[in-house]
Amino acid sequence: MPKPKIEPRLPKGMRDYLPAAMLKREYVFSKVREVFHLYGFEPLQTPVLELHETLMGKYGEDAEKLIFNAQHPGGKEALSLRYDLTVPLARVVAQYPNEIALPFKRYQISPVWRAERPQKGRYREFYQCDADIVGASGMNADAEIVGVVITVLRRLGFENFTVKINNRKLLTAIGQYAGVEGEALANLYRSIDKFDKVGAEGVREELITRGLSDEVIARIMELITVELPGLQKLAYLEGFMGDFPAACEALDELHELIAHLQAAGLPEQYYDFDLTMVRGLSYYTGPIFETVVNEAGMGSVQGGGRYDDLIGLFKGESIPTTGMAFGIERIIDLMDTFNLYPPELGGTLTQALVTVFSGETRFEAEKLAAELRGADIRTELYLQDRKLGQQIAHADKKGIPVVALLGPDEIASEQVKFKRLTDGREIIVARAEAAAAVQALLEGG
Amino acid sequence: MPKPKIEPRLPKGMRDYLPAAMLKREYVFSKVREVFHLYGFEPLQTPVLELHETLMGKYGEDAEKLIFNAQHPGGKEALSLRYDLTVPLARVVAQYPNEIALPFKRYQISPVWRAERPQKGRYREFYQCDADIVGASGMNADAEIVGVVITVLRRLGFENFTVKINNRKLLTAIGQYAGVEGEALANLYRSIDKFDKVGAEGVREELITRGLSDEVIARIMELITVELPGLQKLAYLEGFMGDFPAACEALDELHELIAHLQAAGLPEQYYDFDLTMVRGLSYYTGPIFETVVNEAGMGSVQGGGRYDDLIGLFKGESIPTTGMAFGIERIIDLMDTFNLYPPELGGTLTQALVTVFSGETRFEAEKLAAELRGADIRTELYLQDRKLGQQIAHADKKGIPVVALLGPDEIASEQVKFKRLTDGREIIVARAEAAAAVQALLEGG
Repeated sequence: MPKPKIEPRLPKGMRDYLPAAMLKREYVFSKVREVFHLYGFEPLQTPVLELHETLMGKYGEDAEKLIFNAQHPGGKEALSLRYDLTVPLARVVAQYPNEIALPFKRYQISPVWRAERPQKGRYREFYQCDADIVGASGMNADAEIVGVVITVLRRLGFENFTVKINNRKLLTAIGQYAGVEGEALANLYRSIDKFDKVGAEGVREELITRGLSDEVIARIMELITVELPGLQKLAYLEGFMGDFPAACEALDELHELIAHLQAAGLPEQYYDFDLTMVRGLSYYTGPIFETVVNEAGMGSVQGGGRYDDLIGLFKGESIPTTGMAFGIERIIDLMDTFNLYPPELGGTLTQALVTVFSGETRFEAEKLAAELRGADIRTELYLQDRKLGQQIAHADKKGIPVVALLGPDEIASEQVKFKRLTDGREIIVARAEAAAAVQALLEGG
Repeated sequence: MPKPKIEPRLPKGMRDYLPAAMLKREYVFSKVREVFHLYGFEPLQTPVLELHETLMGKYGEDAEKLIFNAQHPGGKEALSLRYDLTVPLARVVAQYPNEIALPFKRYQISPVWRAERPQKGRYREFYQCDADIVGASGMNADAEIVGVVITVLRRLGFENFTVKINNRKLLTAIGQYAGVEGEALANLYRSIDKFDKVGAEGVREELITRGLSDEVIARIMELITVELPGLQKLAYLEGFMGDFPAACEALDELHELIAHLQAAGLPEQYYDFDLTMVRGLSYYTGPIFETVVNEAGMGSVQGGGRYDDLIGLFKGESIPTTGMAFGIERIIDLMDTFNLYPPELGGTLTQALVTVFSGETRFEAEKLAAELRGADIRTELYLQDRKLGQQIAHADKKGIPVVALLGPDEIASEQVKFKRLTDGREIIVARAEAAAAVQALLEGG
């Protein structure tokens, strides 16, 4: 017997994905996966629950307050829900030295949990979508990462986007060149990181409040705000900082990276240097990347770069690694904004509805549904006893493009009638031709 | 800087899936999804974390001890990790009355968490794979469920399996016919449920210890142990219980179910009645299904049936529902046992490795990799500086079928050499033909 009514609710910041939303998500995930495979990345999956000790001490105190902890009654292990996909990757690389050959190109598309205050577009359970190359130190690896980003976005239908490229070493060199050192250098990163939000004037003001001299600030600003196309920007910096070894190393890396991007034929319209782009995370050690979709009016849809000291964490050594994460939830939303979902993703994958004329014809309808399914046509069989009009309305509402009509006349003459709901086109064909006829209607014939 | 070494470990009963294992899992999931879509089932996804109150009181006390609870520091909501996919479905059906039209055919393939004692083949995080039809009371819906089961197993390559069919109402009628009532009836279910493990003699003994008389036990056993093919079994039962309304209703349902299975052309070799099959869960109310793979030496790979009183839980009403869950982790293991994975699933999806002859030829290699990827060939570019022999050994070890060799001679003559590692076949083609040549090698040409 049904128990008394309980209120159906979700926890704060959590979502259900009903079928129409799932189709869109799956479409984006499948395109991303397709490109990852194209570049030789392989899937990894780690469990949702990690040992608490595995996660602690990796993200900083503020972040660690957001981690969900888990336990079962009487359980002795302190567990946590994963907070990202990077620390689990570091654990895996250390845990399976015999199974995993470096370079290890892995991707993972999985949910993570963070107890942030829910707000528009921010959830407590959301998907991350990471691809990393572990154990490769050359700029050719970084170029593959940029290639993946550009190829994914283009295959999803985005055309007007920019992969912003910078190098953490270059930021350090700019600081040194301007006369900023030690702790103040970390603060300098943080201030420049706000460039996108507060602009050049805002950054300048912040640097003043941080106690930097006018002269130091002027030297920094004249470097990071230069507006020159592509490689000319590097030449400009060389003119100022050619004597700084850190700057030379950084600029060499960027030159090399660009040479690899050009060899791979990646169109220059999709990437550019941005010396104000910092990437908040402290763990980057070399080139960094961040992608914005122009005219999207939102933050970046991808972040990444080289971080040589994190993945070796559990081994106690440094392992050169470069990688990236898509802001996949933002991308899913932008696909709607820019109307990039293919029209056939119209709410259902189902291609045909087999209607049922009456109780007497039900078995024939079932036979037809089986025939269509046998020909790999995704077919719903109408399960209830309703009037034909209601059955067709059901297909219409769900966006099923073709309905099959099988009344006593059609059955007697071993025929079947199909109607395409999008334009009302009707055809009557012999039963043996049923699947081919639906296929033709689906293809617009 | 790398921090001191931490031991990389997993929590008890949790697993990582490295790429080779992931490919197998993804293959099985994709075949299952394909069939779900073929039958018009649509994807649903619910969050991992549910409110504690949503899950409590649904599974019974013993099960609820196994639920993992979750909370973040300072968090006010009592949360739990989902224990199955059925209670979340019930919540969703109640929560979105306007978005969800009945009948609602949904599937969900997602992990669930249970703190059971880990043992061989039993994990604390494992996938469930459910398909249900909510809001359809006819046996045609139950027939669709059986159709999905048979089609999935056949498409995965299983041929020797049996979908066992019974009806909860029939078991009740058998109890009544034999003279068992009330509480003793529930115990009767439990005893018969052990038939698979302890056999007829074991069940008989247990019924004796439960205090049933010899006569009652004899009446039960003569019904449930009858060995007759298909519909003759129903006729046999009718001979004994034709006067019991509960039995007539159950037998009518089974007759009708079989008529639908026949109309759908599902071969009889794949299903049979099994009057000793009970399904442990108390919530079934009509036909029940359970599938065993013969000669597998393990329990069922699928369970399900009609349960009209659970999905309406959050609405406080009864909603007719039938469905099934695959024991997907067992199926994944059995695919190995019976060697059913396609041979091309040989450890990697990558189809070609572009080797790098020397530092000077690297950019040409990158260009070739880009060309192959542009033609949708899944291509790894060798990223490190190693001898050619080591690069080819890498492809061999990973199971990449084709390697591209691009030395100074090939570059000078605008050609490229490909080698198929499976049989050593080598071809040299013009650069413009590269992608077509790899395609031909992959197809065995």
